[in-house]
Amino acid sequence: MSFLPPKGMRDSPPKIKILREKVFEKIKTVFERFGFDPLETPIVEKWETLKGKYGDEAENRLIWRFQLPYSEKWFALRYDLTVPLARFYARFKPALPFKRYQIGRVYRYEDPQKGRYREFYQCDADIVGAKEPFADIEIIDMMCEVFKAFNFSEFTIKLNDRRILKGLFEDKLNVEPETMLKIFRIVDKLDKIGKEGVINELKETGLAEEKISYISEILEIAEFKNEEILEFLRKFENEEVKKGVELLEACLDYSKAKHHIKIDLSLVRGLDYYTGMIYEIVVEKPRIGSLSGGGRYDNLIGMFAREEVPAVGGSIGVERLIDAGLETGIFKIEKYTIVDAGVIPLSESVMKYAWEVASELRKSGINTLILYEPTTPVKGIKRLEKKKISYAVLIGEKEASSKTLTFQNLETRERKEYKFDEIEKLTKEIL
Amino acid sequence: MSFLPPKGMRDSPPKIKILREKVFEKIKTVFERFGFDPLETPIVEKWETLKGKYGDEAENRLIWRFQLPYSEKWFALRYDLTVPLARFYARFKPALPFKRYQIGRVYRYEDPQKGRYREFYQCDADIVGAKEPFADIEIIDMMCEVFKAFNFSEFTIKLNDRRILKGLFEDKLNVEPETMLKIFRIVDKLDKIGKEGVINELKETGLAEEKISYISEILEIAEFKNEEILEFLRKFENEEVKKGVELLEACLDYSKAKHHIKIDLSLVRGLDYYTGMIYEIVVEKPRIGSLSGGGRYDNLIGMFAREEVPAVGGSIGVERLIDAGLETGIFKIEKYTIVDAGVIPLSESVMKYAWEVASELRKSGINTLILYEPTTPVKGIKRLEKKKISYAVLIGEKEASSKTLTFQNLETRERKEYKFDEIEKLTKEIL
Repeated sequence: MSFLPPKGMRDSPPKIKILREKVFEKIKTVFERFGFDPLETPIVEKWETLKGKYGDEAENRLIWRFQLPYSEKWFALRYDLTVPLARFYARFKPALPFKRYQIGRVYRYEDPQKGRYREFYQCDADIVGAKEPFADIEIIDMMCEVFKAFNFSEFTIKLNDRRILKGLFEDKLNVEPETMLKIFRIVDKLDKIGKEGVINELKETGLAEEKISYISEILEIAEFKNEEILEFLRKFENEEVKKGVELLEACLDYSKAKHHIKIDLSLVRGLDYYTGMIYEIVVEKPRIGSLSGGGRYDNLIGMFAREEVPAVGGSIGVERLIDAGLETGIFKIEKYTIVDAGVIPLSESVMKYAWEVASELRKSGINTLILYEPTTPVKGIKRLEKKKISYAVLIGEKEASSKTLTFQNLETRERKEYKFDEIEKLTKEIL
Repeated sequence: MSFLPPKGMRDSPPKIKILREKVFEKIKTVFERFGFDPLETPIVEKWETLKGKYGDEAENRLIWRFQLPYSEKWFALRYDLTVPLARFYARFKPALPFKRYQIGRVYRYEDPQKGRYREFYQCDADIVGAKEPFADIEIIDMMCEVFKAFNFSEFTIKLNDRRILKGLFEDKLNVEPETMLKIFRIVDKLDKIGKEGVINELKETGLAEEKISYISEILEIAEFKNEEILEFLRKFENEEVKKGVELLEACLDYSKAKHHIKIDLSLVRGLDYYTGMIYEIVVEKPRIGSLSGGGRYDNLIGMFAREEVPAVGGSIGVERLIDAGLETGIFKIEKYTIVDAGVIPLSESVMKYAWEVASELRKSGINTLILYEPTTPVKGIKRLEKKKISYAVLIGEKEASSKTLTFQNLETRERKEYKFDEIEKLTKEIL
């Protein structure tokens, strides 16, 4: 019999769960500072709720959808947290702007590989019912604050606008939507494969020479500084491009993280979805790469309620953050256990007093374990050390009769006596 | 199109999610004080992992098991947190005793009704690898501490032992296991239907007259005081009963909550599962009923690892706690939002300064929302009130030019001026 969870899914032993909780806690604190309220929706949704929302590939290969043996109904495990948000909005119609965050597991039947799981956490913050530009700027600012909270200092906010992409590429190239999608996917790889690489791949698609050289020009400009790119974009007469430029300008004007912003005309992201600003935050030191992305999507939230509801949001790649954080040493498995101290009773007769001591330690806020069977100091300490507990409290006949306890720091090996009445003092030593 | 989640499942809007998190946080704190480490396992398990563990009814009607359209494999949503713990133990073999808690959602295809859901939280603490009696006592003591943390003072710990039930009933009545199960189910209802009710229902099963009068005698004794019941039980020569009595005695001797303990010979719980101590904690004031239950199960954890691993644990009926807590008024929806203060910009020209103010408030630890479009004080305050936010920060031309802010308590309507440099002072007023 196998003891493994399903492929692509993971158990989190205490040391990992402690770290994950710490990471989530940090993110939650920043989200709440920015006025986002917590929300929770079921893991299971009706299949009809998810159907038609994610495109063919997701529907035919990736969504965990199923029937039970007891029912004709189709269910699905949630694929992201955005469609459930849209359903929630339609159901409750909360006062706008509705700012919510949700940290929860989502399910995709991907081929598992390094950093890609079938069950993973998403960590989303969205603002429903707010037009550009301030809500957009707030999302960017907040995500930057999250990374600052994790002590990342060197990161870049790649910023672009869906309307600019449309004006620059779609309207000019005049190709089928499918071809356009292919082109965008190639352009999006600029960072990885360089300009030469992009041009080569574009040639392979059979795109006309003059169209490729047009794209090549744009990519040239994409390497310019922010102000130069804006200069170039301002020349466009296209109304949509103008709006995109205004958005970029507002971001560069108002964002508290403006010095991290780099306009990136090759940033594409999921195009079907976004209608305005799009961003990605790339951590450069350590070289972790993209840890957050998002943008404005003014057509999605209203699709259930059948009304127009502007929205903007961002997501933190929290699995990547944790995996890469552990690899690069930003996160360390420091705590193997939440237990602060272990009480070791040295004989059967002191058990009752040891029980009192444990209870008193707990009252003082110390996370306390007690060994259930009397043992020797050496054996008891060995057991605590095996569990990576830092402090031992030894209770023998002497301690029981004098109402004291022997407290030992298992790292320095230093021992001290404490009176039972003074247990609260221990709090300072330990916490 | 329906905006509802699947039947028997619930959305938690912010006000509910805030309450739930507070409840979980309180439980977690107590669990951690007692030295239990957090654990997380996937929501999805292989079907083969759950198969054969929960009995026929669960397997044929209740477990969410399914295949995906892309695979022949059978999966299942976890039915409880105990089988995943057993699998985890077999996989990782953590140092013993392994004390873990897990708060997580489980899935049962029940007919939804008041207080019964298809997706609900379980909140378990278990000690793996520890023999009786101290681990058992610790579970009871800890669960009592949880209820004290919620300010319940009047509750009873119903305590019994599987071995006593066996000695008192099974060995004496000499009936088929199936009949025994029926009898136990009826006896378990003593609290609800009274002794007469139990006798009547027993008669309906066609049980022999003398067996019924034997049970009737036991039920008589069940109403005695703890010491009298023990007196009666001590007369049994049966080795298993002796062990059970010793366990009860140890609990009454060592438990910090001994004055809450009532030995209850009619307490049965799920019999297949438990091997020793069983308990239930019943809250009497307010009349909520059973909020925690558990016991010793020495044969379950080892079933994956194929070795003997003693274990004892308890579970908090957290959904019932929350539902009943809200109904009885112990829990109140006090916080509709995590937002402390809302910044209201009164004109376009002050937007940048308002942005600075919001940022400074956040730095001071205040959860801050900012309205994205300038408005009047009246309209702005109305919007904050609609979101149940308690404090407004008004930013007009005057404030922007003098680097101040107008702070208003929306309950008392009192307004105060603050300098931008003094924003930290606001923390005291708000938090």
